[in-house]
Amino acid sequence: MGTYDPKAFQALTFHDATERFRDGSDTPRDYLERCLATIAEKEPTVQAYAAMNEEGARQAADEATGRWRDGCPRSPIDGMPVSIKDLLETKDMPTQMGCAAYEGNFPKRDNAAVWALREAGAVVFGKTVTAEIGGAHPGPTTNPFDASRTPGGSSSGSAAAVASRMVPAAIGSQVGGSIIRPAGFCGNVALKPTQGGINRGERQATSMSTHGPHAGCIEDMWHVAIEIAKRAGGDRGCLGLFGPDAPPAPAKPARLIVLETQGWERIDASTQAVFNELVGRIEDSGIEVLTRSNNGLVDAFERTIGNAQNVASGITGWENRWNTRNLVDQYPTGVSERAKSVLARAEAMTPADYRALLIERQSAQAAHEAIGHLAEGMITLACPGGAPVWAGDKPGEPLAPRPTGDAVFNYPSSMLFAPVVTVPLMAQGGLPIGLQVMGQPHTDAQVTAHARWLLENVAPVAAS
Amino acid sequence: MGTYDPKAFQALTFHDATERFRDGSDTPRDYLERCLATIAEKEPTVQAYAAMNEEGARQAADEATGRWRDGCPRSPIDGMPVSIKDLLETKDMPTQMGCAAYEGNFPKRDNAAVWALREAGAVVFGKTVTAEIGGAHPGPTTNPFDASRTPGGSSSGSAAAVASRMVPAAIGSQVGGSIIRPAGFCGNVALKPTQGGINRGERQATSMSTHGPHAGCIEDMWHVAIEIAKRAGGDRGCLGLFGPDAPPAPAKPARLIVLETQGWERIDASTQAVFNELVGRIEDSGIEVLTRSNNGLVDAFERTIGNAQNVASGITGWENRWNTRNLVDQYPTGVSERAKSVLARAEAMTPADYRALLIERQSAQAAHEAIGHLAEGMITLACPGGAPVWAGDKPGEPLAPRPTGDAVFNYPSSMLFAPVVTVPLMAQGGLPIGLQVMGQPHTDAQVTAHARWLLENVAPVAAS
Repeated sequence: MGTYDPKAFQALTFHDATERFRDGSDTPRDYLERCLATIAEKEPTVQAYAAMNEEGARQAADEATGRWRDGCPRSPIDGMPVSIKDLLETKDMPTQMGCAAYEGNFPKRDNAAVWALREAGAVVFGKTVTAEIGGAHPGPTTNPFDASRTPGGSSSGSAAAVASRMVPAAIGSQVGGSIIRPAGFCGNVALKPTQGGINRGERQATSMSTHGPHAGCIEDMWHVAIEIAKRAGGDRGCLGLFGPDAPPAPAKPARLIVLETQGWERIDASTQAVFNELVGRIEDSGIEVLTRSNNGLVDAFERTIGNAQNVASGITGWENRWNTRNLVDQYPTGVSERAKSVLARAEAMTPADYRALLIERQSAQAAHEAIGHLAEGMITLACPGGAPVWAGDKPGEPLAPRPTGDAVFNYPSSMLFAPVVTVPLMAQGGLPIGLQVMGQPHTDAQVTAHARWLLENVAPVAAS
Repeated sequence: MGTYDPKAFQALTFHDATERFRDGSDTPRDYLERCLATIAEKEPTVQAYAAMNEEGARQAADEATGRWRDGCPRSPIDGMPVSIKDLLETKDMPTQMGCAAYEGNFPKRDNAAVWALREAGAVVFGKTVTAEIGGAHPGPTTNPFDASRTPGGSSSGSAAAVASRMVPAAIGSQVGGSIIRPAGFCGNVALKPTQGGINRGERQATSMSTHGPHAGCIEDMWHVAIEIAKRAGGDRGCLGLFGPDAPPAPAKPARLIVLETQGWERIDASTQAVFNELVGRIEDSGIEVLTRSNNGLVDAFERTIGNAQNVASGITGWENRWNTRNLVDQYPTGVSERAKSVLARAEAMTPADYRALLIERQSAQAAHEAIGHLAEGMITLACPGGAPVWAGDKPGEPLAPRPTGDAVFNYPSSMLFAPVVTVPLMAQGGLPIGLQVMGQPHTDAQVTAHARWLLENVAPVAAS
């Protein structure tokens, strides 16, 4: 039994502290010190961090304190402590990617998003644990609401740090489900932007990965995302994240599609009941709900994404194979067996196999665009239930499948390049279960507005 | 006056040597030794190489010798000495990018194309000089036909090594005109593939750069490209280079468009006369020629690419700015003033400026697709004349513009993501001038077949 109660849980927020920075009744430095105190208390159990630079953070917080005092903050996130997934390079901390082969890796430069955060005045504080190289092999981080369970992955530390109130926001990244799933397991809000929405900097190896924030509230989530995009832009060749500087106001959608994708049969009865009740509450609020059982177009679309797990995993495996092969050749014992098994599957593919998956992805994207007029967005579970227990692989037995949880519900938005905001609107057994709100590519602001409306107007559903 | 005579020049070729590898009358090791002898003779003047691994090459050549002797070569390029532009990582040689900030840089891994070349049995031999970080600041390489002139850039060493008969093929890369222009200045054939055709490996920073081979003949050019693509695939998210294993047979196009793009007014009268005569010979061979002056659709298309230089330079500058800023911050004196001035222009751009250029690029691509039925391909000059003299910047004066020559005719195919094959069909003043043959994206094999037909059936035009 976990300790999460969606009605009682108070996430750490930042946007509502800044007025006090102006009048001097609070300061970014004091805010940071409170974060550090929380970390000192909770980190021994949660283990969210792979590295920290407390001295650098204090200096940055002092500079932000001065700017707020002088009435000239650089942005709404000036002084905000933000932690960075340990896949992204940071000039003042090592980047070890949860992988023995990268032990001691310390490029002295900032990932584009990190660079933008510093430009916006954010206090870049700490590298958060990632599953190995962003894959499925877990790090030490535990779920803040039940330490026997995974926080999800691969953005494990970012999710857990925010859910533990250690920091108001942290950067994650997603290829399959690495932003959305851990946010769902940890009760955070999170944005997986439209593909290419946020400049990935040095991390351009795959065609469907995104960087995006975990946060305690929609306002902080949006501020972090848009302040990065304003400075670092999107990925090369992409238009980048659009939207207003201010967090989009709540907007009630008239009609939503409920997706029941590949993996729906894996949901246990209790989670299904919680989700059904939430959908009922959404309908009660006056929003029309379409599903594959009451709408043929939705069913046709669902079929185009029915193989999303294979499509997403196959494409990403192929795209990573050359990088991983180099790593394994260079550090034969520095890469996990789990990652090596992914590599072996990818190396059994041919260029023709890869092309076929790309075509399947393009077809699904075309189908998604084609049903864009049906509804203003789509909702589905962020994860197939509460976070599962992870007790480690057993020596001599096959590797445990999915130690950081099941990403099956996250592949569709990844392969569709679609923006998703996850909001904490469910719980089961004291564990959070997130709701995904998804839209058409480049409608990140609208998706955020819908997610905010749901969060503010629909009572969360909790079952024991 | 240069020493190039298109009728007399004999390029170094490989495909016609392999039969002798089978019967033992020649071997890859002997082939390599002949290359090394040529390098010993010419390198002091040409200065094509930034690094060499002769020992490793000899070992690889011996292994290839054994495979041919045993009748089981890995591919048609097994044993082929291939040099690599010094932007691409090689596990056995440093990668210094013609940039002081990268002095001693030695990542112990292979770029995806290099990895594929080794898998195909090629003898990866030597890193060729690149203009600084693939930009415009030149290295020491001289034009093989007149040492006072540039070989072009940024693939300077790859172009000069092939033209000097040091190696039968070398890998270059292009963002603006870095494959096509030096090939045009050096009398090589070269392929700039469809955008994404060849996996760029770690070099994914920009949305329009490609890797492609310089070679002495179409057969070797194609073999190198397709053997890489078969093993390493294309870039992530791209279908990759299509085509047969065997070099496409010559194919006579029925109709070609002659492009007279931005920069046409910079051509001197003699080069214009040479080009006109070549176009006349092409028409005499029975190929219909369309131009903007005899066809309104061609004119409409020309207008969509009329700003190609600004579009391509702006997009690439913006996409590189974060990388370059990191480099300059880390190594303030390790980057040239020329590169810093490019960075300053890019940092004056906004995300909205970048988006506007992307839209202009997309519009041009749509226009290119729309006129796809008009003709089977397009031809134009690869460079605005013979290679210019480069005598260095003058202290106290503004930086010399375009020290590696003018890329103005290369931006259109780059921004259109279109495949180009350059063939040596012109000369002026003893200097080669290449002809570009361009097609629709993914028609690389057809473009190669057309270029091969022109090369084999149209007599080159030389003027003194």
